[in-house]
Amino acid sequence: MGADVRSQILFLQIIMLPLGANASEKLVEDLFLYIDAHQDDFVQSLKDWLAVPSDSSDPQLREELIRMVHMTAERIRNLGATVQLVDMGFETLHGGQRIQFPPAILAELGNDTNKATVCFYGHVDVQPAKKEDGWKTDPYTMTEVNGNLYGRGATDNKGPVLAWIHAIDTFIALKKDIPVNLKFIIEGVEETGSPGLEELLKGHEQFFSDVDYVVISDNVWLSRKPALTYGTRGNAYFFVEVESGKKDLHSGTFGGIIHESMRDMVNLLASLVDTSGHILIPGIYDDVAPLTEEEHKLYENIDFDMEEHKNNTEVNTFLYKSKEEILQHMWRYPSLSIHGIEGAFAGIGTKTVIPSKVIGKFSIRQVPNMQIPKVEMLVKKHLEDVFAKLNSPNKLTVSLEIGAKPWMANVNDPQYEAAKIAIRKVFGVTPDMIRDGSTIPLARTFQDLTKKKVMMLPIGGADDGEHSQNEKISRSNYIQGTKLFASFFLELSKLHEDLQTKPNPKKEKISQLIGS
Amino acid sequence: MGADVRSQILFLQIIMLPLGANASEKLVEDLFLYIDAHQDDFVQSLKDWLAVPSDSSDPQLREELIRMVHMTAERIRNLGATVQLVDMGFETLHGGQRIQFPPAILAELGNDTNKATVCFYGHVDVQPAKKEDGWKTDPYTMTEVNGNLYGRGATDNKGPVLAWIHAIDTFIALKKDIPVNLKFIIEGVEETGSPGLEELLKGHEQFFSDVDYVVISDNVWLSRKPALTYGTRGNAYFFVEVESGKKDLHSGTFGGIIHESMRDMVNLLASLVDTSGHILIPGIYDDVAPLTEEEHKLYENIDFDMEEHKNNTEVNTFLYKSKEEILQHMWRYPSLSIHGIEGAFAGIGTKTVIPSKVIGKFSIRQVPNMQIPKVEMLVKKHLEDVFAKLNSPNKLTVSLEIGAKPWMANVNDPQYEAAKIAIRKVFGVTPDMIRDGSTIPLARTFQDLTKKKVMMLPIGGADDGEHSQNEKISRSNYIQGTKLFASFFLELSKLHEDLQTKPNPKKEKISQLIGS
Repeated sequence: MGADVRSQILFLQIIMLPLGANASEKLVEDLFLYIDAHQDDFVQSLKDWLAVPSDSSDPQLREELIRMVHMTAERIRNLGATVQLVDMGFETLHGGQRIQFPPAILAELGNDTNKATVCFYGHVDVQPAKKEDGWKTDPYTMTEVNGNLYGRGATDNKGPVLAWIHAIDTFIALKKDIPVNLKFIIEGVEETGSPGLEELLKGHEQFFSDVDYVVISDNVWLSRKPALTYGTRGNAYFFVEVESGKKDLHSGTFGGIIHESMRDMVNLLASLVDTSGHILIPGIYDDVAPLTEEEHKLYENIDFDMEEHKNNTEVNTFLYKSKEEILQHMWRYPSLSIHGIEGAFAGIGTKTVIPSKVIGKFSIRQVPNMQIPKVEMLVKKHLEDVFAKLNSPNKLTVSLEIGAKPWMANVNDPQYEAAKIAIRKVFGVTPDMIRDGSTIPLARTFQDLTKKKVMMLPIGGADDGEHSQNEKISRSNYIQGTKLFASFFLELSKLHEDLQTKPNPKKEKISQLIGS
Repeated sequence: MGADVRSQILFLQIIMLPLGANASEKLVEDLFLYIDAHQDDFVQSLKDWLAVPSDSSDPQLREELIRMVHMTAERIRNLGATVQLVDMGFETLHGGQRIQFPPAILAELGNDTNKATVCFYGHVDVQPAKKEDGWKTDPYTMTEVNGNLYGRGATDNKGPVLAWIHAIDTFIALKKDIPVNLKFIIEGVEETGSPGLEELLKGHEQFFSDVDYVVISDNVWLSRKPALTYGTRGNAYFFVEVESGKKDLHSGTFGGIIHESMRDMVNLLASLVDTSGHILIPGIYDDVAPLTEEEHKLYENIDFDMEEHKNNTEVNTFLYKSKEEILQHMWRYPSLSIHGIEGAFAGIGTKTVIPSKVIGKFSIRQVPNMQIPKVEMLVKKHLEDVFAKLNSPNKLTVSLEIGAKPWMANVNDPQYEAAKIAIRKVFGVTPDMIRDGSTIPLARTFQDLTKKKVMMLPIGGADDGEHSQNEKISRSNYIQGTKLFASFFLELSKLHEDLQTKPNPKKEKISQLIGS
């Protein structure tokens, strides 16, 4: 958050006081004062949570991940909520081994039928992180530097989960009525594609039946300006495996007579995407929703500083020059990224190995109206065609490891209105209405399976570095985000009452424009 | 070793006894009986050595590596040898950090001017090894299964170093005169290209001045039949680095607008070698010594079972069909292997990262008469040309990390004759005269810098899996190898006396045939 936004907040807080605040304004003031006064406690809670290496992609850290879920359940139980831990069964690793999934948390607090019921989704697993990957601080020891709280999971997603809990804490501490009924769904495998969550939703229809709104806070703003997110891309994550034999060989002894798997691998991976970022898999763009004139206009007013975005990403050049093209290619077009190769030599130094079995990893971000089964078919056909031309005797296996659909919300849901008002109260600005290039499978899953209204309400900053080295959340975003959630409860409660009687005619407009 | 060879040995040992053995034959018999009787002690010594993870490519294991060198020095000192530890200075890692190299060992035992002086070269560092790479047993806990001793370093090169020491032990234990003067040069960075060894040789001319023969036992047989090695390939190991920015990014948030470094990397690596194993770098074959008719004939008589070799390597198909082509492409033609990519995601699971800086690793095996500086120039030019066509704004850096020259010996050196006789005494067969596709930089360095006669005398089997998972040496090869070394001392001593007076006219023939 920039100095300009901070001064606006200060101004807002100063001018609010002399207005002879009514009970509602006095409550907001008390809540905000309490949150400011307890910010060091809230930061300490985050430090405790970030100390747990709950990396869901590393089977060796599975116990830590399960511990993290139990810590979270205990924390929610302390709010007075009823907490249920749902067994999620077993995960089968690529090598065939089976290990336990962490349980999912379903919790509820309050059941006043006159109140709106908000279900908060969050996750407490994190991406991999190692100090030697280029972290300036230990990724699992939260460290505050220049107002930023560094640590794996700070913004994705432990910080926002805690901010939501602290917002509830604040009502309880001040002995104020919580203006909405609250439900929680917290999972521990979001970073590996939320396996089992569809079944969880299908198996707990009763739990979700009285939910009015779903809030997810698992992404970040686009700029220094707060934002509301109404769409995300999906993800189809592929493994392409080439096996030349049963064991690695010495490149001196055997180099020159082996059909090396890495030779096939780099040719396969080089066939996927060209220099302009265009995906080379035939047919992959066929189902992408066409860009209409009306949709194009949506991008014009968004606050997006390309230079600042370049600085945040620390790259020199983007693939596109205009703001509109950049935003469209992050949000509404598919992209293909090559993540790496398992089984080849990846350490520092000079190992002289001919790897036998290598697994290339890449993923294609999904947008409306791409369909995962068709994408899977096109990718497999393309790679098999390329491999056939290589004329290699090695063994090729292509598999879809994650298939997460894209998601689009109706921006005229009451909760989007409530969030806009709450953001104005806390930050003094009107949020940008944005989409997010990354994937929250549950947003789409919720919309499909429960027909509930879903909103993404981020509190993290554009430069938080989710999934990157030196992930952080700023102390300011973390604390103001807590206020935002508290304020949102109040605003949603008011709007919910109004809107129970007068439905909104604009309701379906945006989703019609852009496709489902 | 097959049952046929074993029965020949047994036969030989039985028929030797009734021949009214002269003193020399009685000595051989006593040495062999002692070695057989103490084989469990020798295996235990190997177990102790394999327990040290002396991986020279991993800076985090540097202390273990240095400990291994000191253990070795102490073991050689216990033979009664004078041992000198030579400080090798500091290693600068790719990231700029500096760490201490392990010292090198120079040692000597005996200085009778009437005896031949044999210098044994070996190394006690090992290749990387992790259980999860596919080892059936812990790589640093030596485990005997079906007569094989499994563990990282078993055959490369701790087993042979210990066998040489135990051969000397045997003379000492039996209170017999050691028939040759012995010198040792043992290093700890062979697996990373022996940096600093040229300077070591240049700086210790006095130490090497009275050496007559150099023996290296750092490779393996070609089949089940013992072999002597008269040539090895060199190695030019390259890093190709592509940097798109300063930090890794989330493929959801940023995929579609970034010039991804991995896209450039797979295109660069795919430009290096084609499906037939042919290297695509223009000019790379220009200096390869032409294959003459006479050299071609050398390959015809070698005992090489392609089916067995396929079984050992556990691949289905080789690039070539005939024995001669296979041997030539392992020994006398260059090959290019892609080892892996540092900085990309290489773990198991599904990390959704756009790596910023990635380092592709590949190496080209060098043969006569390729010259490293020219190869370096050709590789850099080729990669820069390919990169220019990609039209990428990313940063490319190509560096030569190891430049090790190929080596060719004169097969008519007296020590080759002595080794042939010793092999006949221990194994009952005449060895194959072979080359090795892998690199022993010291062989060439010794020949260049000291003009000494160099021989490679392997004791490991073709299926030992050097540099691979499940590396091993068979108990039989380890113990018979110890006998071979003891027998070699005796035979060399005899031949050395004879040959002091009559030089061999065939001396230069083979090296003239094949090139230097």
